[in-house]
Parts: sequence; C-alpha cells; structure tokens
Amino acid sequence: MAIRVAVVGAKGRMGQEVCRAIKKDKDLELVAEIDLNDSLSIAVDGKAEVIVDFTNATAALKTAEFAIANGIHLVIGTTGFDKENLTQIKNSLAKSPTTGVLVAPNFAISAVLMMQFAATAAKYFESAEIIEFHHPEKIDAPSGTAVRTAEMMTESRSAANRAPMPDKTSKSIPGARGGKVGDIPVHSVRMAGLVAHQEVIFGEQGETLTIRHDSLDRSGYMPGVLLACKEVVRHPGLKIGLENYLKLD
Amino acid sequence: MAIRVAVVGAKGRMGQEVCRAIKKDKDLELVAEIDLNDSLSIAVDGKAEVIVDFTNATAALKTAEFAIANGIHLVIGTTGFDKENLTQIKNSLAKSPTTGVLVAPNFAISAVLMMQFAATAAKYFESAEIIEFHHPEKIDAPSGTAVRTAEMMTESRSAANRAPMPDKTSKSIPGARGGKVGDIPVHSVRMAGLVAHQEVIFGEQGETLTIRHDSLDRSGYMPGVLLACKEVVRHPGLKIGLENYLKLD
Amino acid sequence: MAIRVAVVGAKGRMGQEVCRAIKKDKDLELVAEIDLNDSLSIAVDGKAEVIVDFTNATAALKTAEFAIANGIHLVIGTTGFDKENLTQIKNSLAKSPTTGVLVAPNFAISAVLMMQFAATAAKYFESAEIIEFHHPEKIDAPSGTAVRTAEMMTESRSAANRAPMPDKTSKSIPGARGGKVGDIPVHSVRMAGLVAHQEVIFGEQGETLTIRHDSLDRSGYMPGVLLACKEVVRHPGLKIGLENYLKLD
Amino acid sequence: MAIRVAVVGAKGRMGQEVCRAIKKDKDLELVAEIDLNDSLSIAVDGKAEVIVDFTNATAALKTAEFAIANGIHLVIGTTGFDKENLTQIKNSLAKSPTTGVLVAPNFAISAVLMMQFAATAAKYFESAEIIEFHHPEKIDAPSGTAVRTAEMMTESRSAANRAPMPDKTSKSIPGARGGKVGDIPVHSVRMAGLVAHQEVIFGEQGETLTIRHDSLDRSGYMPGVLLACKEVVRHPGLKIGLENYLKLD
Repeated sequence: MAIRVAVVGAKGRMGQEVCRAIKKDKDLELVAEIDLNDSLSIAVDGKAEVIVDFTNATAALKTAEFAIANGIHLVIGTTGFDKENLTQIKNSLAKSPTTGVLVAPNFAISAVLMMQFAATAAKYFESAEIIEFHHPEKIDAPSGTAVRTAEMMTESRSAANRAPMPDKTSKSIPGARGGKVGDIPVHSVRMAGLVAHQEVIFGEQGETLTIRHDSLDRSGYMPGVLLACKEVVRHPGLKIGLENYLKLD
Repeated sequence: MAIRVAVVGAKGRMGQEVCRAIKKDKDLELVAEIDLNDSLSIAVDGKAEVIVDFTNATAALKTAEFAIANGIHLVIGTTGFDKENLTQIKNSLAKSPTTGVLVAPNFAISAVLMMQFAATAAKYFESAEIIEFHHPEKIDAPSGTAVRTAEMMTESRSAANRAPMPDKTSKSIPGARGGKVGDIPVHSVRMAGLVAHQEVIFGEQGETLTIRHDSLDRSGYMPGVLLACKEVVRHPGLKIGLENYLKLD
Repeated sequence: MAIRVAVVGAKGRMGQEVCRAIKKDKDLELVAEIDLNDSLSIAVDGKAEVIVDFTNATAALKTAEFAIANGIHLVIGTTGFDKENLTQIKNSLAKSPTTGVLVAPNFAISAVLMMQFAATAAKYFESAEIIEFHHPEKIDAPSGTAVRTAEMMTESRSAANRAPMPDKTSKSIPGARGGKVGDIPVHSVRMAGLVAHQEVIFGEQGETLTIRHDSLDRSGYMPGVLLACKEVVRHPGLKIGLENYLKLD
Repeated sequence: MAIRVAVVGAKGRMGQEVCRAIKKDKDLELVAEIDLNDSLSIAVDGKAEVIVDFTNATAALKTAEFAIANGIHLVIGTTGFDKENLTQIKNSLAKSPTTGVLVAPNFAISAVLMMQFAATAAKYFESAEIIEFHHPEKIDAPSGTAVRTAEMMTESRSAANRAPMPDKTSKSIPGARGGKVGDIPVHSVRMAGLVAHQEVIFGEQGETLTIRHDSLDRSGYMPGVLLACKEVVRHPGLKIGLENYLKLD
C-alpha cells in the first residue's frame, strides 16, 4: 500500500519538484498539494499519513503544530529554524509519541555524507574551516547545512579533547576570518552561476583533507526526500538530519 | 620501555626523516640506521624489535624475508608491491605466527581517512573516478594509494550491487579516459611543484561529492609512521593499510 | 535594423535554447527554425543573414556548404570537426570572400577566458596538464574545448622554446597518464551529476597555477551565441573560437 | 658584471632563502647580509647597488628611507604596507629620480599571473570573490596578495561600469560574508598544513571561472626575487607588483 503524502508549499520551486517526484514513486501517493494560502485541513481531508513542508520557518512551525495535533508524520525541508523552534516542536511531540518529525537542512546524499565524514575527520586534525557557496538569492548566511556541519564538528572536536585551533592573526579586516559557528570559522560565498556547494577543509602539519559536495540541480534532492517520506513513518519523535535514516560505516 | 627500531633505507629522503622522528619520540629508540649497501644483520645486532623499510619493492622483499626469519616486526612504507609479493610475505609469515607486518601505501592520516570515506561513499553513487597528482620524479602511475583506494571502492560497489557506471564515450583518444583499476577509472597527473595529492569524485543525478587529500611535505607522514612502529608489535600477521590501526566511525 | 537569423537543429536541446534567446534580443530577429529533416532553403526563404548550427559534424558540414554557397554568414556550435572538415570549409570560403564562418567549440565566456589564460600561462611553467569533466552522455573524449585548449598551449610552449615536461614514469597502467593532445596530457572524467567543467593545471618548482571553468547550465552559453551572431557579419573568413571576437588584455 | 646586492632580514626564513639563491646566480653578487639589529650602513660599505628587504612594514620603511637617501635600488618583499607608507616612499623618491623601488606583495609567478588574469576576468562577470588560505602563523588577514588582487579587480569592474554584485543576504552571522576590500568580499582561511594559496572565483548565469595559485614552498618565490633584483636597476620610480617587470598578453 502506497504511503499517502500531502505537500505544503506545493507551488514553490522545491514543492513542485517534490510533487512531481512523489507522483512517479509507486510506493507513495500524492493526496494533497497545499500552497501558502490554502488551509492545512486539506491534508486531513486527503487522509495524508505524511506531510512534506518546503515553505519558510514561520509557516513550517504552523504546519508542525497542525501535523502533530492530527497525528500526521512530518518531513520539514525548510531551513532557518533556531533552537527555540526545535524545542517547541519537541514539546508538542511529547503529547503525540507515535508521530515522527524529520527536520532536514539538506536532502542531498552527497551533503549528508559530507557532514558525517566531516564529523569523523574533525577528531584527527588541528585546524578545520568551512566554505559554503550559494546562488545570490539566498537569504541566510551561513547556510543551514553549514551551521549543522559546524555544530557536528564542534561536538567531535570537544569529544576528542582537541586544543583550540592555531591562529596568530592580529591585524585583520572585519569579516576576513569568517563567522564562527561553535569552534569552526565559516565563510559564505554568494555568487551568480552557483547553486549549492560546500567545502570542509582540515589541516595538520604537512597535510590537508578536503571534503566537498556540489548540488547542481534541485533534482539531486529528490531521492533523499522520497526516502524521508518512507522512513518518517517508522521513526517516531524528532530527528534532525537525514543521516538518522542512513546506515553509514 | 622504548620499542627498539631499525630503519632500512636510512639515507633515503623518507628514511632520514623517519630516523629524525624516531629519535624525538620517547616511546621509540633508534638502534640501527641501515642503508642499501649495509647488511641487514645490523638490525639483529642492535636487538631491533621493529624494522621500518623505505626502499623499493625488490629490496623490501629481502628485508621482509630477513625480518620474518628473525622474528622482527616490520613496517613497510615502500610502494609498488604486486599480489605475488604479498602472497610471498603471507607465506613466510605462516612459519612465524607472532610476527606482525604492516604494508602501508600511505602513512598520512588525511590519505587514510580519504580512502575510508571513499570506500563508504562508493556504495551510494552511480559514478566514481580517481585523479591523483604527484611530483614528476615518481616512477609508478597510478600511485600505490590510488590503486588501493580503487580496490576498496570496487569492493564497496560490488557489495552494494551497483550497476556499471554510465559512459557513452565512443570516440576517444587512447588514454583520455584514464586507466582502470577494478571498476574505477584512475587519472595520474605528474607535475613539477606538486608533492602527493589525490581527489576521489562521486556523482549521481544533480550532485557530486569530492574527497581530496594534499600532502605538502614528508613531515605529514611521520605521525603515521610512529604510530605504525608502536602498533605493529601488537598486530601479528600481515596487515595492508594504516587503517587497520585506526578506530574510525 | 535587427540581424536576421536562422537556427539549424532548432528542436535540439541547444537549438531550443538558442531560439528562445534570439527572440528576446532586440538586435536579432529569428526568421527560421530548421530541424534536421527540414530543407535548408527555408533559411533563404526567410532572408537569413546568419545561420546558427547546433547539430552534429556531418550535418554541420552540409549546412556550411549551403550557407557559403548562398553568402549567408554562419555560426557553428557543433563539436567534433577534424582538420579535414575545417580545410573543406576554408576551401569553400575561398570562393565567397565576404562570408564569415565561426566554428566555436565553446560559447561560455568562462571557457573562452580559461583557454586564453591557459595559452598565456603555458609559456611560464615546466609542467601543464588538462582535466576535463563532463556528463556521461558525452560521446567524444577529450571534449572539443579540451582539444582546442591543448593545441593553444602546445603552440605557446613551442613559441617559448620550453623543454619537454619532466616525467619519470616508468611503470604505468595503460591510460593512467592520460591522452596526449600536442604536448599536453589530457584526462577526461565522465560522471553522472556533472555538466561541463575543465581544469588546466600548471606547475614549476614550489608552485602551481590552476584555471578552472564550470558550466552548470546551457543558459551560460547564450550571451556568447548572441555575441557571435552579431559579430560574424563583421568578420569575413573562417575563425576558430569565440576569442576572435573578444578584446582581452 | 654581476649586480651587487645586500639583503636586509638576512637571518629570517625568507632572507636566508634569498641569500642562498643570490649566491647561486652568476648575474648577482651578495655583498651584505644584514639582520634586524645590524646597521644598514653595511650595505653602503659593501657598495650594494640593490637592497632586498624581507622584514616587516616598520623596518622596511626605514630601509626605504636609507636606500633612497643613498641612491640604492630597493626590492621590498615585506607585506602590510598601507597607502600612507607608499605615499611616503613616493615622496622620498621625488628627490632621487633615478632610484628604483619595487614593492611586491608576492614573487611567485603563479600568483602574479593569477592577479593579472583576475583583473582581466573581473570585467566579464557579475560576481567575484576571493578566498585565500595560509598557515596559522600569518599575522595579517587578508594577505597582501589578496588585498592587491581585490584592488585590481575593483578597478577593472569600475572601468567596465559593472553594476554592484547581486546578494540578497538579509540574515547573517557577523563575518560569514567575508571582509570587503574595494568591491570584493575576501575570505581568509588560516590552517595548519597550508603554506600560501589563493582562489579567485567569478560567476554569472550558468557558469563560473576559478583561478587558483598554490605556493607549497618558499623556493617558488626565488625566480621572482632574482628577476626583481635584475630589473629594479632599469625601472626608476616606485612600482607596485612584479607584473611591472613581466610581459603578459
């Protein structure tokens, strides 16, 4: 039996792509295409088991309240959530323990692997920085993926008792050394011709390691979104990141 | 008690660096510096517990026979071994079950992580190729590290039942598409100004993942060589690759 | 007065894009959309001053004979021409001295600049190699752009009396060291997720220079195609490469 | 007749390398090795025709006053000069019109070509940013090379009447978008294992161009320093950048 899915933000750029991909997947059934001015109740009318939301942080929080109140599993691809937002979702979920919510800053398998590898490598190197590259229409800097990567790396460095990174900079133009997320300097490039790219660089005496992902096309996210729709029904509670559904070694 | 180490190829470029690094490590003691024309028996005279060999494939095989016959553990950093060479070492070790031999094509932690990450990522992508970059004095192409990486990736692809990579090339200059090691096309660049670098690229619809290591300096190998000297005494039998001594997750 | 343009291969992927771009440009007028089965005489009927051809080498040669015979300027974006093909076009042009023909392997300004910079840099470095990366549907390896770049670099090296590149490779898997175009080793990567990319690397003692272009999208070619339509009417004779119409310094 | 050269900062890391390189060059003669505590008059005693200074901005200004007062040509490899410093040198030179002074932020030919190419490319693209990578002992961020590159690019963009770069960032961590030098965002990475590297990236709809130089080793600067010693005697007045002595096209 196909899983019944409603898409919120269905007329947005990602939303349209998600609707097309769900229609082509025989294990999923698209039961509602909801745009920003439509009532979320259409999802209930369509007996949706899963809601996929690609809107914005404010709208997605409303979708989350609605989905949890109605016991519908939820996949949120929207970026820009802060810790308070996540706590609010967690609190709501406490009253609906069988409902699953995935908040994923990135559905590209290359990005998720990059994050996992970066978290592992962070234990072994003195220095680590992130450079992320996006199209100039992007509103937030750094990207949600970069912030999440930096948090994971900071945790790894802390667990490995690493000393602070060496840096003798004493004469600097403001901003040149990037913005810090946890321990990690993050640099955000915004440029015509780019889509979504990130480079994580590690260094110690005599050697460096670089892990880079390039997303050239929104189609690269679809395998991850479809996987999320299928897995969210089997993972109750709040999960942050698609890596929770992947078996890496 | 410091572990007693003899270095074979002690006057070569790597050998000199290894001798310096061992002298500085309080857990190791350098008991013999043996060059190509010296007798290996100097290692026995010095009561070496470990021999480190940075010579060439032919000389290293002789060192291996000698070390195993004398029950001395062995770390081989020499590249260019073929399967027959490894079988020969394995056969010799059968008669000396407590002796450990490490054959490591690369001692840089960045290179070892690159190989491990590449083996994991190979499961998830349609396409994968390797580009390796070295100084023009290098004799073998591809490098030992590239060959080992390609073998590990081929095993991963096979275990994940991946289809052959897409490639519609039908009009080609010989060599343009690289040399195949297992399933993986490998491209070798030889250039003044380079030291030792490798890039592994993975692709599927809409996205790519790149893992790159750069060794700018032989000093980058020393932490790995010292680690190998300390661990080889606790790992009997033949091990291929420093990753056998590292705990990754 | 707008320049009258006919497009051959108008229903192909590039052709459609070119038609759209010409319609939006107020200095150009699209007077004929000709596909592979249509008669080229439609271009004459439409009083075309310029024909743009994005088909294949065989079809483009026919277009060239037709255009030159009718005194219509021609922009050829098709790749895969060999020297004989170009000689044939040159010979035909001898009888029609006011007609202009541009054969351009690449219309991306980033690619054209890459080629020009590569030709300049080739004078100053001991070593130089090309790596080009394309989607796996591509038929030829190396790409037309890579071949042209390698030819320009070979000419530069020759003019600067550079010695052969250093390379001590003596033990190699066939293809690992790439395919030679002129003096330059060229490596072709074919991978899902890629579009069209090229990296030219130069090296000498202690330093390297890398010039890379990435075309993520066919839209990146349109400014170059439109420029070519406007300039070809002012440049009689055969020109190879969009760089003939650009003023670089 | 060899040109007589004095080196100031002769015991520093660059200074030692420069002394060695001068000794090996038959067209140059090393007549004085002056360190920070020595009197500059040793250069006069040695009848130096050229002084090479690799110290710091404060010391180099004193060297400049001394050299110009004594009519000795000067090559300054020290970074960190501001506009006032350069004006001061220019004013001093007004009284000694036959003396040549070269202030070069970078002597690597790859870096100088990168700067020249970047200045040319800046005319043709909507977006442009710089990322520079250095070892963690470096005091200034951005590097002198990055600042100079950004200035040259800003001039080119201005001459080509380019519109401001597109950038819709409205929610940002301080520093994430880099530091501005002229129109150009500059990002500085400081990392163990790195030496001196810079990447200039350009973008417009559908395509990007990247120009990167890597200096892995101080030896890469020596050909440029030696060239500067020979050319400074033939170029009176103040010149900024080694490109003044190179013939590019």
